[in-house]
Amino acid sequence: MKTLMSTVVGLALWLVSSGAVALESAKPYSIDRTYTHSITSSINGKEYELYVRVPRSYETSDKRYPLAVLNDTGASFPTVSGVLQLLTVKDMQEIVAVGISYSVGDDGGVSRTRDYTPTFAPDETSFHSVASKQASGHASDYLAFIERDVFPFLASQYRLNMDSKALIGHSFGGLLGAYALVTKPTLFDHYIIGSPSLWYDDKVMFDLERKYAKSNNMMPANVYMYVGDKENNNTHSMVDDLKQYEAQLRQRQYKGLSLQVEIVPEATHHSAFPHLLTYALPRVFPLD
Amino acid sequence: MKTLMSTVVGLALWLVSSGAVALESAKPYSIDRTYTHSITSSINGKEYELYVRVPRSYETSDKRYPLAVLNDTGASFPTVSGVLQLLTVKDMQEIVAVGISYSVGDDGGVSRTRDYTPTFAPDETSFHSVASKQASGHASDYLAFIERDVFPFLASQYRLNMDSKALIGHSFGGLLGAYALVTKPTLFDHYIIGSPSLWYDDKVMFDLERKYAKSNNMMPANVYMYVGDKENNNTHSMVDDLKQYEAQLRQRQYKGLSLQVEIVPEATHHSAFPHLLTYALPRVFPLD
Repeated sequence: MKTLMSTVVGLALWLVSSGAVALESAKPYSIDRTYTHSITSSINGKEYELYVRVPRSYETSDKRYPLAVLNDTGASFPTVSGVLQLLTVKDMQEIVAVGISYSVGDDGGVSRTRDYTPTFAPDETSFHSVASKQASGHASDYLAFIERDVFPFLASQYRLNMDSKALIGHSFGGLLGAYALVTKPTLFDHYIIGSPSLWYDDKVMFDLERKYAKSNNMMPANVYMYVGDKENNNTHSMVDDLKQYEAQLRQRQYKGLSLQVEIVPEATHHSAFPHLLTYALPRVFPLD
Repeated sequence: MKTLMSTVVGLALWLVSSGAVALESAKPYSIDRTYTHSITSSINGKEYELYVRVPRSYETSDKRYPLAVLNDTGASFPTVSGVLQLLTVKDMQEIVAVGISYSVGDDGGVSRTRDYTPTFAPDETSFHSVASKQASGHASDYLAFIERDVFPFLASQYRLNMDSKALIGHSFGGLLGAYALVTKPTLFDHYIIGSPSLWYDDKVMFDLERKYAKSNNMMPANVYMYVGDKENNNTHSMVDDLKQYEAQLRQRQYKGLSLQVEIVPEATHHSAFPHLLTYALPRVFPLD
């Protein structure tokens, strides 16, 4: 309530000071051909929203379309909607894009740390709030939610080609993709993994991959990994992390793995995502 | 009516065939902190919509923000909203982004050809419909609409720093930016010009620039021009066009002109736009 009240007071002050018409009466901008659905995870009982964008031809065809799933939707869903509007149909196939929101009513930092990180790391220094750290480590529940709840719902509501599914994630979302690859690689067919947080929990992804390699010689997946060339700071290089992770994956010679790794020129952690989407989508979903 | 009926019939058939719940009851995805306004051009009497996205701090500050104006909003507005969500506040300043829609009720091709092209070119072979060509050549009216109607409206409704305004356009929208530069360069402070249609009307922009140069030695503007390295086909190279236009501009040694031209690697005409937005916005609006 405190937040709501301060918003109301702030808005009122702003209206008085600016003499502007009431903005609350102005409609928001809605993205064309998008639909919002509520869905509850059968794993953790939390409610999420699904944001679905269908391509131009959807209503006039009987085609089934490949599926791209994204998280961190506040930035990713508008971006992918704009990029798809531009790239289809000259540069790539038409696809259905689906964003999975943070759990409704929860802090975004808590929701993404809980759902996208592979391990419980309460002492991790590099991210979010104490509450986030305490919630961390439930990526496996989140992948089960996608498999058991999200996919069946989408397949029942939309004409999808469920043999061509991509997971697209950036930062913690990229960490989630990397984790899916070493626990349930067939959950998706394609993985677009941007600027993954391979530093997380003392580089636990390197251990998880070693564990996977001990009992698996297959990783049937089409993987694009990207990082911006400016993603270094005084204490850490995400570029080096990704190169090391690439080397570790390549030495396994996994059957079924197609791996492409790229360093995006002049890109920071935050600018890498629009670049990787724009480069990777036409590669993952090329024209027929 | 024919179009409406066929849409209704198509939707009904689709619902029957798929067994899906009615999608029309599902809300669209709305971009956070966006507002839609209707505005009528005092020049051509047409109605347009303005889509405004304010930054995170807008409601809790009394700051005035720089302004970025975009056209071709179906692709540009979602893209810029996602990119701004990512890049602010670590990579660039907070700004207000405004998309100007096509004129309400008109075909998009007709609207953009009428409003973004500098000259009447009914025999141009490279674009849109006969109706578009017949409507072409009213960029000067469109710039007057921005100056006389759009800017005053925005300045009255939002806290803007009207001394820091950028025009962002791609393709015909880039042609519009190039045209503004040689007719009314002070209308904006910054110009982000992507993949401009310099081929238009027998390369008329080269002539218009020559005309401007005859009576002007100043071009006070900060200009970023981009083209994708794959924007060539058998008959034409948009890369060569842009290089020639750059050379023509540079030889004038205009006072006040800051010009940067870049060829975006591995980019097509359609993929160039998200890249140029992501590269150019932090350069035009760097952190303080």
